[in-house]
Amino acid sequence: MSNGTNGVWVIGALGDIATTLFVGTAALRRGLVSRAGLVAETAPISDLGLPPLESLRFGGIDIALGSARDSAEQVYRGSRTYSREILDAVLPDLADVDRNLVLDPGLAWNVLSPSRDLPPLAELAERMRACLRDFAASTGAEHVVVVNLASSGPNPDLAAAHRHLAEFETALDADRKNLISPSMAWAYAAFREGCSHVNFTPNLGADIPALRELAEREGLPFCGNDGKTGETLLKTVLAPMFLWRNLRILSWEGTNLLGNNDGRALHDADNRKAKIGNKAAVLESILGYPAHSGVNIDYVPSLGDWKTAWDLIHFQGFLDVPMQMQFTWQGCDSILAAPLVLDLVRLTRFAAGVGERGPLRHLAGFFKHPIGVSEHAFPAQVRMLLDYVERHRAAPRREG
Amino acid sequence: MSNGTNGVWVIGALGDIATTLFVGTAALRRGLVSRAGLVAETAPISDLGLPPLESLRFGGIDIALGSARDSAEQVYRGSRTYSREILDAVLPDLADVDRNLVLDPGLAWNVLSPSRDLPPLAELAERMRACLRDFAASTGAEHVVVVNLASSGPNPDLAAAHRHLAEFETALDADRKNLISPSMAWAYAAFREGCSHVNFTPNLGADIPALRELAEREGLPFCGNDGKTGETLLKTVLAPMFLWRNLRILSWEGTNLLGNNDGRALHDADNRKAKIGNKAAVLESILGYPAHSGVNIDYVPSLGDWKTAWDLIHFQGFLDVPMQMQFTWQGCDSILAAPLVLDLVRLTRFAAGVGERGPLRHLAGFFKHPIGVSEHAFPAQVRMLLDYVERHRAAPRREG
Amino acid sequence: MSNGTNGVWVIGALGDIATTLFVGTAALRRGLVSRAGLVAETAPISDLGLPPLESLRFGGIDIALGSARDSAEQVYRGSRTYSREILDAVLPDLADVDRNLVLDPGLAWNVLSPSRDLPPLAELAERMRACLRDFAASTGAEHVVVVNLASSGPNPDLAAAHRHLAEFETALDADRKNLISPSMAWAYAAFREGCSHVNFTPNLGADIPALRELAEREGLPFCGNDGKTGETLLKTVLAPMFLWRNLRILSWEGTNLLGNNDGRALHDADNRKAKIGNKAAVLESILGYPAHSGVNIDYVPSLGDWKTAWDLIHFQGFLDVPMQMQFTWQGCDSILAAPLVLDLVRLTRFAAGVGERGPLRHLAGFFKHPIGVSEHAFPAQVRMLLDYVERHRAAPRREG
Amino acid sequence: MSNGTNGVWVIGALGDIATTLFVGTAALRRGLVSRAGLVAETAPISDLGLPPLESLRFGGIDIALGSARDSAEQVYRGSRTYSREILDAVLPDLADVDRNLVLDPGLAWNVLSPSRDLPPLAELAERMRACLRDFAASTGAEHVVVVNLASSGPNPDLAAAHRHLAEFETALDADRKNLISPSMAWAYAAFREGCSHVNFTPNLGADIPALRELAEREGLPFCGNDGKTGETLLKTVLAPMFLWRNLRILSWEGTNLLGNNDGRALHDADNRKAKIGNKAAVLESILGYPAHSGVNIDYVPSLGDWKTAWDLIHFQGFLDVPMQMQFTWQGCDSILAAPLVLDLVRLTRFAAGVGERGPLRHLAGFFKHPIGVSEHAFPAQVRMLLDYVERHRAAPRREG
Repeated sequence: MSNGTNGVWVIGALGDIATTLFVGTAALRRGLVSRAGLVAETAPISDLGLPPLESLRFGGIDIALGSARDSAEQVYRGSRTYSREILDAVLPDLADVDRNLVLDPGLAWNVLSPSRDLPPLAELAERMRACLRDFAASTGAEHVVVVNLASSGPNPDLAAAHRHLAEFETALDADRKNLISPSMAWAYAAFREGCSHVNFTPNLGADIPALRELAEREGLPFCGNDGKTGETLLKTVLAPMFLWRNLRILSWEGTNLLGNNDGRALHDADNRKAKIGNKAAVLESILGYPAHSGVNIDYVPSLGDWKTAWDLIHFQGFLDVPMQMQFTWQGCDSILAAPLVLDLVRLTRFAAGVGERGPLRHLAGFFKHPIGVSEHAFPAQVRMLLDYVERHRAAPRREG
Repeated sequence: MSNGTNGVWVIGALGDIATTLFVGTAALRRGLVSRAGLVAETAPISDLGLPPLESLRFGGIDIALGSARDSAEQVYRGSRTYSREILDAVLPDLADVDRNLVLDPGLAWNVLSPSRDLPPLAELAERMRACLRDFAASTGAEHVVVVNLASSGPNPDLAAAHRHLAEFETALDADRKNLISPSMAWAYAAFREGCSHVNFTPNLGADIPALRELAEREGLPFCGNDGKTGETLLKTVLAPMFLWRNLRILSWEGTNLLGNNDGRALHDADNRKAKIGNKAAVLESILGYPAHSGVNIDYVPSLGDWKTAWDLIHFQGFLDVPMQMQFTWQGCDSILAAPLVLDLVRLTRFAAGVGERGPLRHLAGFFKHPIGVSEHAFPAQVRMLLDYVERHRAAPRREG
Repeated sequence: MSNGTNGVWVIGALGDIATTLFVGTAALRRGLVSRAGLVAETAPISDLGLPPLESLRFGGIDIALGSARDSAEQVYRGSRTYSREILDAVLPDLADVDRNLVLDPGLAWNVLSPSRDLPPLAELAERMRACLRDFAASTGAEHVVVVNLASSGPNPDLAAAHRHLAEFETALDADRKNLISPSMAWAYAAFREGCSHVNFTPNLGADIPALRELAEREGLPFCGNDGKTGETLLKTVLAPMFLWRNLRILSWEGTNLLGNNDGRALHDADNRKAKIGNKAAVLESILGYPAHSGVNIDYVPSLGDWKTAWDLIHFQGFLDVPMQMQFTWQGCDSILAAPLVLDLVRLTRFAAGVGERGPLRHLAGFFKHPIGVSEHAFPAQVRMLLDYVERHRAAPRREG
Repeated sequence: MSNGTNGVWVIGALGDIATTLFVGTAALRRGLVSRAGLVAETAPISDLGLPPLESLRFGGIDIALGSARDSAEQVYRGSRTYSREILDAVLPDLADVDRNLVLDPGLAWNVLSPSRDLPPLAELAERMRACLRDFAASTGAEHVVVVNLASSGPNPDLAAAHRHLAEFETALDADRKNLISPSMAWAYAAFREGCSHVNFTPNLGADIPALRELAEREGLPFCGNDGKTGETLLKTVLAPMFLWRNLRILSWEGTNLLGNNDGRALHDADNRKAKIGNKAAVLESILGYPAHSGVNIDYVPSLGDWKTAWDLIHFQGFLDVPMQMQFTWQGCDSILAAPLVLDLVRLTRFAAGVGERGPLRHLAGFFKHPIGVSEHAFPAQVRMLLDYVERHRAAPRREG
């Protein structure tokens, strides 16, 4: 029996973004903070009738030991993004997350060098599915959205195993851990358990034909990849201006400094490959011509969760005169990301409720590499969402 | 008989923007430079069938002594925005501008303290009209676009004289130089002589009901005010992003440093009042709520035409966390402005040709204070122009 | 009888800097924070044998109502410069400051428009002296350093009354509140009561011949004016580099944004006159030639105590090529200022102990406008202090 | 017989810095530009009696084909650092450089993978020496300063061959091109031919014990390595400020973007190793404690000779509060470097004249990695030069 609860299963549940998501949602419910940062709370999106914050219950998995409450203390101490007062107020609420938390270091592997000590893939996938079944059962949730917030890892090269569901499942049974990454296995588990899926990471997740086939077969919606929170957001806001003013980009160079766990993971060249690719690709896509572009990501521990990006944009105007723009973006990574995750959870749950299946193209503006969408210009992406809202405000709602 | 020539009459013809306009158009005709910076040369606007560059002939007036050729040398020496080689190549072409140049220090006055030595307004207005008649006659132009590129000056407070054409003409006959600014007199002269009008300055020009009445009576189009070239352009590109992401602007502070003649004029608080007002107003209009905002304009002679702007944007995200963005814009003022003027001339000439009258709303994106338009968000303004292009590409063209 | 206590009497005791001074000193004594920011704790200055932190007792006066404990809460809430945990730990210690706090709105006036309701100057000066006597008596301090941390206010134009002590006292008796500012009256009171004096504000304070005469007659040391904490510090560090490399400064433009009480006070043009003068003067003094230089100070409430400065340095190198440097300084005003105040208190107390009198020239590096010193280059000022330390480490110490 | 001529032999004579050196010296002699950028022209250094600009004659070698005149045209077209007018005026003067130019692609090799087609080292070294003899003979120079301005290349790991001259010459005879880099061979050739030596590159050059032994035996002075022109200069100016104010550096991250030939060479990780090492080492040396520090160097062709550096300095102040400083340095690499090379040539020639031998420690301030000096703080390095000037102004001069 449905109790009106919407389950949110978080992969990477002890990370900075997940922690900020739990703390922030609790603080919002208690009325301690404003709704700033939440796209879903602005008109006309707020008219859609999205699932209320109060309907959400969180659970999840992490490969590290700990608890949501401990993580909340650590984020507080490391980055001071919320105050002691807020932390103290919401700590009791985090106990509910901790009740639905699974700590399992075995549910992650590196496709470039999978450990030989792990059980076979099929067993791991079943463990993932069991997590989701248990979570649904214990919370009584009528629907579960699986949200991937894990660290960036290497993606496998695309192969036959990714093309069709049958081939994917064959590779799964054959324990091909070098072909099937943890993010893919989680997406697979989600769809097999009737869950919709949000992938906020640069890991491939559901973005392969085989899993899209599965999602469509099961009638489930999904979205991703790689949340667009800072430097890339600005790129997709500014590049259209240069294009429209016919100011030719000569070079666009970016440096990203960050000191959180994500920064530590991205310090590894294999791990940051997908993210740098996503960051670089948007520019040429928007401009329509190749422009010299570089992206550095450096790990600077002292910055903690405060990601600082500096971009230099060298462009050419009338009479071929070169000019420059620079920007510095000093944002707190988790604070930028967590509300978007909350938006995506609610919008994906809504989509599941109205029977949408496959990639949710109207959510392109949330991602660096929107699945199934080649439009990267932010204003155009905003319009895609507004058009969607326009259609769904009018339409009668079909509950899932 | 029409010879296919389109006249462009420039007020402030020896200024930096006008000089760059003349040099740049000549360099383009000679194939020395790319079309960078010209909006009208990008698809789909280039499909409209705008008047070709070759059809334009320039003339104009300045209150200083000099020649277009001398000004071209001065801009070269002061700001090096074009090379000696380009300058040498186009100097002969500037001789044609010089043939159509009127130097008349008497055709400008300050509404705050008009000189008593000047002839009455009616006589000055007649001198302006005579300039336009002579230019049309000597060039055989089928249509003349009057472009205001004069220095910023104080605007009169709005009064009854600005409300209706009859009252305006009464004030003109009564020699009320404190009510009718030079930019208004030029707009009046333009419309009376059948010219369309582009006002790139923060001076009020045609933006009063009385002159709009005249333009509509005469069936003439016009656009303005205050070209949107740098810091304000960025504001109207970035503010929509903050709005849509529900990131609340706490403060938006801007500092503009420039060293050209415009900078010298704006050094005077009376002169910069309109410009600062235009720069500040866009923010609240886009955001829909009041945000602390300051704009400094400082005269820094050594920068010459290189305008440097620094903006600090202080905003609040999830959990009410304050974050920051800064940008520096190092653009050459004339290089940014001149191609827009060329675009506006061609688009206004086109509009006159298809029989449009009154303010050209689809050109809002070119201006800090678009006449008759309250939309300041740049992406929305771009869409207004694209919609216009869509309508006019299909429609059969009615020549003026 | 001396109990080894050194009194520190703070004018503006409820302001942000004073509050941070009290909180920080308490946190240091409790071992909660490192010694970062304290010049006096670095070698070789730490070898001088300065009065220990434990020997200091604070008291002071403010014209607003409140308490050190309330101010500590407010600074915490407004700028989050210290954590809740630190605040909770030191709140009991602030009770001692509150015991020695005088709240007296009558002890401040504006020299440009002194209120007619105030008692005569002589009475006010006597009230100031009584404060100091009471503080010394109640704490048993063997010496009191009077520290001015009040808001910036207008300085009187220099006049005969400032030239000699006799004339000063005549003006005092004649109640010339337009000639004698609060900062002068406090310096006078300090010297008459045998106290040494530190003026961290741009208010003139003891920097007039009349009060210097008094300090020397009484054998008392003093230092000031206007603490050098951020943008000006950088100017005096960078300008010598440009000078030595023979890179000619064309323009040096600075914008300072701040949102604390000091920012509010400086929003008033009269109040910021002295500070802007101090900020601008250092450049020409270091370079030896006049360079175009502008300084803006803008009040941006949302920044709180976080002062953000942006400077553009336009300079000319070989072949007269113009180049640029920009910097952004994002410092917390009180956090930068408070440790310098603590340094100055200890160094001034030390100087009093070894019998120095008059302006303390070796402390020039702490001030934008060092009294009695024309050297502004920071490296040279550092050397002055190091030379002083060298002399005093060797010399036998004479206790006051 | 001496004709008062001082020879300057430039390795890398067609590069951007060398070209700017030739153009700039000619423009100075013709009085076309100011003395900006020249340290040697500022008091008191100008009192030393340095060899006049008029006494210098330039020659040199490059491994590319071309001429000084062609390079001057290319630099003009690529970076516009000097005007067409200056270029036209000095082109005739560059003919003299071209007369003394040797183009020899064989005089460079990569120590990591020396080509097998090259003649043996002993023969190459003899070719270098012959160049110098020919240059001295043809110009009649009384002394030749050999200046290394070649591209950055990999340095060999230090080995026994670098320890003593005898071992070095054994390796030379044994054709060990993986041990003896071109910069070492040139330093060797210089000293064997009685020339003094300036190494402006990060290549090791004379900075090995074996060559120091040779220089001292021959009574010749030398200086290097790696000219300090931009980001590192600022580091050594700013780091002492943080040190002295006891503001603890948490992280200091730098990004360098450049598009000239040097940038292209540094794009190769092997080539940039030495330079990055030099840039990073200064910080810890000045601070006295390890601070997280990163340096990126990226090749951005469109920037040409305009090197743009952005540094983020994260530091901790009172109450352990983290704060930030950022700077952007937009300098033209050759314009910053060339005058320092001219200074070094004159100061090294002076040193040779007064009989100094070995590394010239007083020139430490010119270099990122000053040979024989551990002091990196710029103010202290300035003092070293000023002390030297003080000693030599008084001393009677002994001509070489």
